[in-house]
Amino acid sequence: MITLGCPDRTGIVAGISGFLAEAGGWIVGAAYHTDPVTNWFFTRQEVRADSLPFGPAELRARFTDVVRKFGPRVDWQITDTAERRRVVLLVSKEGHCLYDLLGRVASGELDVEVTSVIGNHKDLAKITEAHGIPFHHVPFPAGDGEGKAAAFAQLRQLVDGHHPHAIVLARFMQVLPHELCAAWAGKALNIHHSFLPSFVGARPYHQAHTRGVKLIGATCHYVTAELDAGPIVEQDVIRVDHGDSVADMVRKGRDIEKVVLARGLRWHLEDRVLVHGNRTVVF
Amino acid sequence: MITLGCPDRTGIVAGISGFLAEAGGWIVGAAYHTDPVTNWFFTRQEVRADSLPFGPAELRARFTDVVRKFGPRVDWQITDTAERRRVVLLVSKEGHCLYDLLGRVASGELDVEVTSVIGNHKDLAKITEAHGIPFHHVPFPAGDGEGKAAAFAQLRQLVDGHHPHAIVLARFMQVLPHELCAAWAGKALNIHHSFLPSFVGARPYHQAHTRGVKLIGATCHYVTAELDAGPIVEQDVIRVDHGDSVADMVRKGRDIEKVVLARGLRWHLEDRVLVHGNRTVVF
Amino acid sequence: MITLGCPDRTGIVAGISGFLAEAGGWIVGAAYHTDPVTNWFFTRQEVRADSLPFGPAELRARFTDVVRKFGPRVDWQITDTAERRRVVLLVSKEGHCLYDLLGRVASGELDVEVTSVIGNHKDLAKITEAHGIPFHHVPFPAGDGEGKAAAFAQLRQLVDGHHPHAIVLARFMQVLPHELCAAWAGKALNIHHSFLPSFVGARPYHQAHTRGVKLIGATCHYVTAELDAGPIVEQDVIRVDHGDSVADMVRKGRDIEKVVLARGLRWHLEDRVLVHGNRTVVF
Amino acid sequence: MITLGCPDRTGIVAGISGFLAEAGGWIVGAAYHTDPVTNWFFTRQEVRADSLPFGPAELRARFTDVVRKFGPRVDWQITDTAERRRVVLLVSKEGHCLYDLLGRVASGELDVEVTSVIGNHKDLAKITEAHGIPFHHVPFPAGDGEGKAAAFAQLRQLVDGHHPHAIVLARFMQVLPHELCAAWAGKALNIHHSFLPSFVGARPYHQAHTRGVKLIGATCHYVTAELDAGPIVEQDVIRVDHGDSVADMVRKGRDIEKVVLARGLRWHLEDRVLVHGNRTVVF
Repeated sequence: MITLGCPDRTGIVAGISGFLAEAGGWIVGAAYHTDPVTNWFFTRQEVRADSLPFGPAELRARFTDVVRKFGPRVDWQITDTAERRRVVLLVSKEGHCLYDLLGRVASGELDVEVTSVIGNHKDLAKITEAHGIPFHHVPFPAGDGEGKAAAFAQLRQLVDGHHPHAIVLARFMQVLPHELCAAWAGKALNIHHSFLPSFVGARPYHQAHTRGVKLIGATCHYVTAELDAGPIVEQDVIRVDHGDSVADMVRKGRDIEKVVLARGLRWHLEDRVLVHGNRTVVF
Repeated sequence: MITLGCPDRTGIVAGISGFLAEAGGWIVGAAYHTDPVTNWFFTRQEVRADSLPFGPAELRARFTDVVRKFGPRVDWQITDTAERRRVVLLVSKEGHCLYDLLGRVASGELDVEVTSVIGNHKDLAKITEAHGIPFHHVPFPAGDGEGKAAAFAQLRQLVDGHHPHAIVLARFMQVLPHELCAAWAGKALNIHHSFLPSFVGARPYHQAHTRGVKLIGATCHYVTAELDAGPIVEQDVIRVDHGDSVADMVRKGRDIEKVVLARGLRWHLEDRVLVHGNRTVVF
Repeated sequence: MITLGCPDRTGIVAGISGFLAEAGGWIVGAAYHTDPVTNWFFTRQEVRADSLPFGPAELRARFTDVVRKFGPRVDWQITDTAERRRVVLLVSKEGHCLYDLLGRVASGELDVEVTSVIGNHKDLAKITEAHGIPFHHVPFPAGDGEGKAAAFAQLRQLVDGHHPHAIVLARFMQVLPHELCAAWAGKALNIHHSFLPSFVGARPYHQAHTRGVKLIGATCHYVTAELDAGPIVEQDVIRVDHGDSVADMVRKGRDIEKVVLARGLRWHLEDRVLVHGNRTVVF
Repeated sequence: MITLGCPDRTGIVAGISGFLAEAGGWIVGAAYHTDPVTNWFFTRQEVRADSLPFGPAELRARFTDVVRKFGPRVDWQITDTAERRRVVLLVSKEGHCLYDLLGRVASGELDVEVTSVIGNHKDLAKITEAHGIPFHHVPFPAGDGEGKAAAFAQLRQLVDGHHPHAIVLARFMQVLPHELCAAWAGKALNIHHSFLPSFVGARPYHQAHTRGVKLIGATCHYVTAELDAGPIVEQDVIRVDHGDSVADMVRKGRDIEKVVLARGLRWHLEDRVLVHGNRTVVF
């Protein structure tokens, strides 16, 4: 899988496809987009590995030469989809997203390795272990003192040890410190239980109920230093009406949170999400 | 049509339905709701006029006695659906909502009398008059000086002369002064081209594009003194993706604006919308 | 909870609410509907048990007198929501609906007792038992011979022993014989993986792909003798496009199947679904 | 705009983009799809005309050489988007789709030339002419006799005289004879007021009400000889419930019909719809 983003200019598509054609590469799927505001070009090309006469390392080396012609600001990567994706899940007490993701993995729908689940509470240890996945309990003290910093350091060590392709905050409810946001940039996915940018922060369903909106939503976004302001990967909504209490909204909203997170995670792991500035291209 | 809101207590439903049953009233449709947060009770009862042995005036007099038992803070009204609803439309240059509403009226879908269309520009005069509806041009000078105050005074006179059941800001683009908001409270409906509370104010599609949301929306709400913060009647959304420019969003958003406004207006005119505080019950 | 359906006439609402008011009953929620085609009246009334001076048995006895005045064809029931609802799940090999329902029960969202899961394959035994729920394996031989009849007899015995409020065919993939459809009428809920009446029967996603539809759906309906033709409780859809293979449709469709089944089951267990002929009223 | 479909093989993308790059062509947008079932390749490439050193005729000639290498079964066309698209609308009595399309044209949203509106009734003549568009009345006698054949002959002559890019059956309500379906293949778009393949033929909302579905829809498809069975371009749905009469469904459905037809027509005119067999690719 080749993904690439750079300032637009003529010849990029021809350059890539010409190189692949010459090497005998079979393009299974290709997507292109140019953002007219930033004049940024994006592409994602799915090439059958067995159609190429060389492996991923050689492909990367040769592609480096191709890319050189496209200017100095090219952001690209080639990933080997044969390598199984590793995912770490961060949870708290609310289990619906975890249940949902574990069910998708168990039924084979989401073909990933969940290397571990890490919770700041123990509530979800049992179901995790029933799925044969290790659960780590990292308690987070209240306040912003040294205890919390130590907990984040332990969390980081546990996560980074797995070299995960994705770190999923499945209703984790702890705000990551800036250095973790930076270290996990483009890898840490959060699910926020509102249709952002409405209702940033705590208790979004309460905020939605008070405002009297007629639809509630959920947003899957990359974690950045500013709370709930990272690049949006996916969103969806569900209708509510005056008969819905906050508790009803919480319940209905869960169904949206689950699918929005699952879609966002799948697209991220399939290298479909290209970030530029604070916006995403989802091929 | 009877609509009523008051603090909840036992006996209200029995009181109303007992009164109607005694009078031989045929209840065609009835809806009830109690808000558990405010303990406020709402009901809407549709009674066949020809099933009652007296007219609307007598019904109102008798119902006053019934309602007396429900406490001092009862907010109710009885409307005669035989009376055709009068609507005034306020427009600017953007015609999609006007075209849509006029088409609904012309095809008989929306059975109302559009008494006039008032525009701060002349662009939409011709189509209005082609539908046999008077168009008034009230120019609004820039700034907040006396000219603008005079324009609003003229607008108010033109509107109030029709004793309208609804005043529709169909992309009017002028912020009503506080005294007009107060005078038209519960009657003036606005269509805002975003999924409120996201993207209040000007150029919401630009804001949405910059933020990179994956759905855009529209909101029909009652006009209040605080901009875009009135009670929400209806909202809807449509999916967008990275391929959509601001112009595409404007185009897609129009389809949502049109249906959201048309639904909100219909519900308002059918006395389906009961307001309490900043929230609506839509029966 | 009181639900009632009968031919419409004046005085029903007053009769019920007058009786409840006299007894001091606090109506928490009430819904009414009259079908204009069949002239059938439906109501659902939620009464706080502790507001009544007598228990469910006495309420039923007294209500029998009230109902007598409404004519000979009244279909009503009073249920005690304090009694926990019992559910039996029937499954085959596909686990997504089972995973979803078990997750909802485990997280407390769906407050029911799953008395057992019965499968014609053993694939889903392990996850069921991890949730502390008994799993029964009832193999179904191919063909329509005696072996299959014996399997259905065993299934019926296992199910009926629990006196369940709902029997959920969570992708069970076996067509129930007519006598079971009759015995479980109004209790057996199926999830069909298409937007009925499109694509009845086997392999609906294949049918949908061949036809080139732009949305796929799922339908939760009561099981009746005619295949996939029972009263519809809930439906929903999701967008697909030319890029979606049958496998993609199967995957996307699962998310719809899960929520549609979960909603239908919840509404059924909350006595929100009233059936008349082949149509449902969902209050 | 270049659109092309052919059996898939390596080198097509490289062939096209290499040719364009060599000629200095600026690809503004490009989309590719290979159907894995039929192994058919589809592409749509938007090239800035002013980036090429030759005009459309020369481009077609040169591209013929490029295409030759892709095998004998290549289906392609190059269209000049500078040429304004001509559309003929066929109507009957129901005006909502006509009002909607004329509104879109008048407000500049749909930049096409509506060369004429042809109705088998006169009801919609006045609004058409208010938009400055000629209206032709072609009465269609009942039955299948010579009168009807003559009417279709007259219709064909009127339509073909405009050499339209699209012929829109905007609730035309007459079934086209096979020879017209053949003559207008890939150009005649119909809006059917159901979610096909459900409720083919007459009175789909009545069928939907009887079946008790929870969503109703509309389908825009190319007209083919088999009724309501042509390649689907776009579909959408809207929620209904037990409270909706057939008349309510008709009203709600209209909003879906209008947007589905408008979207389908836009995509067709932008050369986004590629047909292969009975399925469409919508880029």
